[in-house]
Order: sequence, then C-alpha cells, then structure tokens
Amino acid sequence: MTSAELAGQRDTATHPNGVSKEFLSWFAERMRVTACQVERTPLNELPGWSFDEATGNLTHDSGRFFGVEGLHVRSSYGPISEWSQPIINQPEIGILGLLVKSVDGVPFALVQAKMEPGNFNSMQLSPTVQATRSNYTRVHRGSRTKYLDHFTDPRAGSVVADVLQSEQGSWFLRKRNRNIIVEVDDSVVAEDGHYWMPLDELRSLLRIDGLVNMDTRTVLSCLPASFFAEDRGRLAADGMATALARSISGDGTPLHNAESVLSWFTAAKSKHELAVRRTPLSALPGWQHTPEEIFHDDGKYFRIVGVSVRTDDREVSEWHQPLLYPTGQGIVAFVVKDIGGVAHLLVHARYQAGLLDAMEMGPSVQCNPGNYPDPQPTFLDYVRHAPAKRILYDTILSEEGGRFFQSQNRYLLVDAGDDVPIEVPDEYCWVTAHQLTGLLRHGYYVNVEARSLVACLHSLW
Amino acid sequence: MTSAELAGQRDTATHPNGVSKEFLSWFAERMRVTACQVERTPLNELPGWSFDEATGNLTHDSGRFFGVEGLHVRSSYGPISEWSQPIINQPEIGILGLLVKSVDGVPFALVQAKMEPGNFNSMQLSPTVQATRSNYTRVHRGSRTKYLDHFTDPRAGSVVADVLQSEQGSWFLRKRNRNIIVEVDDSVVAEDGHYWMPLDELRSLLRIDGLVNMDTRTVLSCLPASFFAEDRGRLAADGMATALARSISGDGTPLHNAESVLSWFTAAKSKHELAVRRTPLSALPGWQHTPEEIFHDDGKYFRIVGVSVRTDDREVSEWHQPLLYPTGQGIVAFVVKDIGGVAHLLVHARYQAGLLDAMEMGPSVQCNPGNYPDPQPTFLDYVRHAPAKRILYDTILSEEGGRFFQSQNRYLLVDAGDDVPIEVPDEYCWVTAHQLTGLLRHGYYVNVEARSLVACLHSLW
Repeated sequence: MTSAELAGQRDTATHPNGVSKEFLSWFAERMRVTACQVERTPLNELPGWSFDEATGNLTHDSGRFFGVEGLHVRSSYGPISEWSQPIINQPEIGILGLLVKSVDGVPFALVQAKMEPGNFNSMQLSPTVQATRSNYTRVHRGSRTKYLDHFTDPRAGSVVADVLQSEQGSWFLRKRNRNIIVEVDDSVVAEDGHYWMPLDELRSLLRIDGLVNMDTRTVLSCLPASFFAEDRGRLAADGMATALARSISGDGTPLHNAESVLSWFTAAKSKHELAVRRTPLSALPGWQHTPEEIFHDDGKYFRIVGVSVRTDDREVSEWHQPLLYPTGQGIVAFVVKDIGGVAHLLVHARYQAGLLDAMEMGPSVQCNPGNYPDPQPTFLDYVRHAPAKRILYDTILSEEGGRFFQSQNRYLLVDAGDDVPIEVPDEYCWVTAHQLTGLLRHGYYVNVEARSLVACLHSLW
Repeated sequence: MTSAELAGQRDTATHPNGVSKEFLSWFAERMRVTACQVERTPLNELPGWSFDEATGNLTHDSGRFFGVEGLHVRSSYGPISEWSQPIINQPEIGILGLLVKSVDGVPFALVQAKMEPGNFNSMQLSPTVQATRSNYTRVHRGSRTKYLDHFTDPRAGSVVADVLQSEQGSWFLRKRNRNIIVEVDDSVVAEDGHYWMPLDELRSLLRIDGLVNMDTRTVLSCLPASFFAEDRGRLAADGMATALARSISGDGTPLHNAESVLSWFTAAKSKHELAVRRTPLSALPGWQHTPEEIFHDDGKYFRIVGVSVRTDDREVSEWHQPLLYPTGQGIVAFVVKDIGGVAHLLVHARYQAGLLDAMEMGPSVQCNPGNYPDPQPTFLDYVRHAPAKRILYDTILSEEGGRFFQSQNRYLLVDAGDDVPIEVPDEYCWVTAHQLTGLLRHGYYVNVEARSLVACLHSLW
C-alpha cells in the first residue's frame, strides 16, 4: 500500500493494523490542502545557482545551503580501485528533532506532514523539526521554524538522545545531522501541519510504502530500548518473534560481546586506506556535463538535475535547487538469524567515500543492483530470492527528498534460518538490535541505511 | 627529575617512590648501548624527500609515510576567523599496541625503550608496538616489527581495548592511530629492548619528566577502570585523594549524567562551522619558505625542519625526515574540582583544524602562551599561578618524537578548590575520570592532550 492509497482509505475499515482513522483523516486533509508544484529545470537556468568559474562546482550565490562538487577516490579495497564522482557538499549541521511525550504511560511522538521536492509522493511524515542551519538561522528570510527552541535550548534533563549522525556516504561529503529527541510535558500542542501520535502507531506506519521519511527513520533509530511499550501483543509467539523481542530488549546473550564488536570494527577500519580528494566538478573523468544535467557515461549511478518548486507548505513559498537523481531502485537489507534464541543482524563494515571516517556499519546488502553487473555484491542474490515465508519486512522507502529526486529503496529484513552460517567473511559481523541501539548513542558507527532498517525492525516488535 | 638523571640513579637509594632498581638498571643499560645521532638537515637536502612541483607539498618519493601540506581554515568561532598553516598529512592508520598480563593478580605491561629523533632526551618508554602502517608493512624494507602479530591478529576474548584515536589536531590532518591493548599469558617474554613492568610502576614513571612517551600515555588512557589494583595505599586519606579515587573508580554521582554530557558535546559541535581546505604548501599567507625550513612571519607556532638520523636501535639504521618544531613550551592542564565528594575534570569542547570532526574534548587549558599575547586563554592565568598546595601533578612531557622536534609541554592537574565555580562557560563541562574512560572506548571524543592527562591522573591513584 502506498501513502496515496492510504489517504484514500480514511473512510474504510481496511486500514492497516495499528493505524487509526484519526491519523488517516489528518494526513489526507494535509495532502488536500497543501499545494505543491515541482518542475524540472536545466541546471544552468536555476535562479540563485551558478557554476563556479574556477572549479565548475555548482553553488548557491549566498555561499550557503549546499553545493555539488567533484570527488576523486583511491581505495585499496573492493573491485574498483579508483574513481571520480560528483558529490553534495553540505558542511553545515542541521537538526532532525523529535518531540516525545508520555500520556498515561504511553509514548507519543510529534510528527509533521512535510512536502519535499524530491519525494515521489510529494508529502511524507517528517520529525517535529527537520531544518538545515541555513533554514533555521533564516538565511533565506523565511518564516520561523516551529518548535525549534525545544532543540536549540532544551531544558536540562529532558534530552532523550542527542547525537551527530552521518547521511548517505556515497552521495554526501561528510554530511552529518544532529539527531535529537526531547521529552516534553502535555502542554505542547500540535500546531498546523503537526500531529501527536502514539509512537507504536508511527512505527506501524513504517510498513507502508513511502510514508515515513528518512529523517524520521534515523531519529527513531536513536530512541533507547526504554521507549517500547512493555506489553506487546503484536508478535506471534513463534521462535523468530521471541528472538526479535530479545534482540531489541537486550535480554539474552549476544554472539559477540561489546568489546569484540568494537575491536572487529576497529580492525576493519585499519585494514585499508581510502584516499579522498575534492576535485573540480568540471573535469570529472567518466561524467558528462550538459547545460541541463550531469550524468555518467554509462547511464549508471545517478544524475544531478535541477528543479523549481512552488508550495504553500513551507517557510519559503518558491525556490530552485539541484537534486541528485539516483538511477533505478536500490536494495537495502539485513540478513537476520536466530543465534541462541536471540535475533542477530548481519552488519557490514562498509567503506563509502563521503563518510567522515570512510567506514561505518551498514546493512548486509546495500546497493543498486544495476550498478553491479558482475560480480554481484555478497548476499544480494540471497535476499532478492528469499522465499516469502522468510521475509520479515519488505517496504519501499524514500531517501531524503530535499536532496534526492525520487530516490526509492526496497528495505528488507530476511530471516536467514540455516541458509547463512554463523561463520561469515571478515568484513561482516552478527550483532543484536540492542547492540546497535547502544552504538547509536555515538555518531559514525551505523550508517543511515542501517539506521533506517533498525527503525523498521522496531516496527515488528 | 629527568629521565637522564633517573638513569644515573640506578645504584642509589633515592629513586622515586614506586620505581624499582631493576627498571632503573634496565633503562640505563638501554641508554648506554643505544647509539643515536640526530643532525639538522636543510629541507631541500633531505634524501628521499622533495617538494612537489605543482603543490609545493613536501612528500616522500615512495608516496608513503607522511607529507607536509598546506591548510586553509575559516571558522565562526574564536578570535581568529581565518588562517593558513602547514600541516602533517599521514592518512595511514598506525598501531599503538600494549601487551598486558596478570601475574598473581598484579597487572604488568610490556614496554620498550625507544629512540625517536625528535625526543629531547633521545630515549623514552614506548608501548610494546609503535608502528606506522609503512613501518609494519615494511615499506622501507626494515626488519620485522616485534610482537606485531599480537595486535594484527589478536585471539578472540583477549582484547582489552581497541579504538581509533586522533592525534594533535593543530599539527596533524585527520591523523588517527589504532590504540590497542591485548592481554596475554605468562609465556610471552621480553625480547631485547622490551621490558615487563608492573602497571603501577609504569604509572609512577609518568611523574618523571620526559620519560613516558605520548604513545604510551594515549594507550594507557584507554585502559578500563578494572586495571587498577584493588588495594591502593598511595593516596593519603584526605578529601581530594578520596574524591580522585571515586572519580576514577566510578563510585559516587557525577554532576552530569552520561546523556547530558553527550548532549552538551553534540550541542557544542553544532554551534559553529569550521571550514577546512587543503592548499598548496608553497603559497601559505604568513609563512616563509626557505631551502632550510618553513616558519611563520612572527616566529610563532612552529617551524618545519629536517633531520638526518643514524641509530642501531631501529628496524632501519639510517633515515632522513622532516619534523615539526614547536616554538616554546606549551601548557596542558585540567582544572580539578571536588563536587559532591567526587573529583571532576573541566573539559573544553575544543575546535582544532586537523581533527576529523573538527572538535573533541580537550583539557581545561591547552596552549602555547607565547602564541596568545592577549587575551590569554580562559583558565591559563589560573593554572599558571596556582599555589603549590593546589598542584596535584606537574611534569614536563614530550609529544610524539617521530614527528615533532623537541616538543615539550608542561602537564598540570590543579585542584581548584572554591576558586573556580561549578557554573562555567558553555563550551566547558565538568566530568569525572570514569566518564572520560567510558568515552575513550570510542574514538574522537577525547583529544590526545586530554588523554595524556587522564593517564597522568591515574598515576595519582
């Protein structure tokens, strides 16, 4: 089911388990009242943007927001030892802030129905605040970001999580956002466009295609285990259900203790070098640069395109910007295995050129299959062809619609049973969901794709 | 007392408390048998090194080891908003490895007497293994690094700590080393140049000027609290002694809980931007470039100089290299305060241009006073003029002698009593030693100067 179909179902009884009519009604109304037009515009006609004469980099005339630059990469790891690519450089740290509250012991979250120009369905659910520094310091002279003060000046003791996390390491250069969750009391009301909903219900929505946006997913992944209701009837009491509950709650013994997981990751990071150098966008081997867009000779990977946006939903009602347009749909999957009665996720020590420290823990599979004709990445074939009874989770989700155009990935959780052994290649490691949640208190351990899957996993609880 | 004086005292009874005659004898013997000559050599006459024609960067002809490059920095923080400087670029990850063992319940560490060309006293105590990747992969075709296999292929379960940590963020560009501690059984013997000593005695040696090198200090700081002997008679039972013991062991309540400390640090990181760009070494505004050396117009900060080295102590017996020669002696100090019966250290959220994520937690004071005529850094005046009875620790220590020439800092721990209030400026935070040790399980939280001081603090236990 897509979010558009969902909105059409507000008056029927067929809405998915755990999703209320009240939410459906609110979301459909937001879709109805929010006008938004997105038009493709050639890069060299984007008002306010220009190609720097010296470097060819695409930058905003204010010097703020973000730019598109070139990157040259040399690596001693993987099948391709050297390449060049465009990359989005956004040095400023934005805020992805979620307000939560407890009503009679039930946790609620304050979400926002937000339009982003790159969303394939226009409107998705975003956290309470989703703002770049240029946004919230009002470089573009828009209206004030609602609820911002709760995050820039949180009252002592109310911070649940507060950590800088990376974003797409293949598309962003050292980008990081502040993921912050603040608990408030019942006096904070939902203003226009915002909606208080039970955290459980928000997690249920993760099982609907393209509804919960990336920013919501990453900030949800940072919630500690204490933010699960005690009593959960959702999971049948079969083996994997119990194993998942143990994995999330931290009950049961992990295959590797915390020190071993840290040591595995440090060793993996130390094994190879990734030399990254910023280069002029105008001279990237293998890439074509037309007045309209930038694309790869083989038509692979992604394009840089321009859009013009008009909406009544945002601080600014009209603007123009470049977006990164990925080619084809990607696959992001965790192989999950019951080990000793506890569900373990197979994380991959993954190099990505734009990551601050070159490597973070990614999902078992994370790729666009079209970019890899042969050999295909490890475990890709397995998760693509897993039998239906093995699929724990299977939903199409978008990446950040403020920077990526119609980006869609198929997110999967696959129960490996006995198909995947406990012994795995050196760059993989079995960890529990609770171990990942512990690492998520710190930045730069778990990449954004894996964080999304952690949030999706929580929707199975 | 200096290490040279110490060596002269092997046959007297006046050696410092906690230091054995056996160690003094071994160290003096190592000094005696190790020949080493270091000669200053003009940069443009350093065999194997040359200035790149395009960039002016100083690099090794092999393309390995390290290089001296230029850096341009723009910051929205601090009194100087823009500057350029030379910086050492050493992208490869080295190993700082310490073997430990338990003999009848007493922890021992395996140290090495190691000559480095930049050491002002030639020989200092280094960890079991101290090797760059170029060293241990034998780029220079030297002899094999002893004990290396214990760290590149440690047995599961024997790893005590294993983490990438940064080094001097003002002098290195995104340098990090693998700090790894591995526990072995009694069968591992000390080969030539190595020495098993009680961990307690090694910590005592931290109170001797210029004896325990930076690499040993950083790796010692990563030891968890369980590596302290249970029964310590060293500290008198006065208030600060008890407060320090509680601070290290984790007993007693910290002023700020773990979540608040993380949130304070994330907020501090998010407040400003530091834009760092690599630039040609040949065109650095404010810096002079002669055939002999590179230095600042004002004679401040540091010089880049060359040395030629001959020794019989190392994998390679003769080599040539540039070194960074800091101007004058620096001061590195923690202000310490008894808060609720627990000693707290005043950490500073410190921007440094070469740090991977721009900011780490540094000591309360970290500067070369000569570089700051006016205004002087916060708390500098206080720690310089603290009365003797307030000084908990006061020792001159070297920074890394393989990259820095005769670098010396005065390391201080100063009991603030009531002189410094609990309320401090936003970019400072009171934390316990145990909280820092917890953060040290992860990289890039605590800078190398603060890590040194954590190790020094442990010497007071």
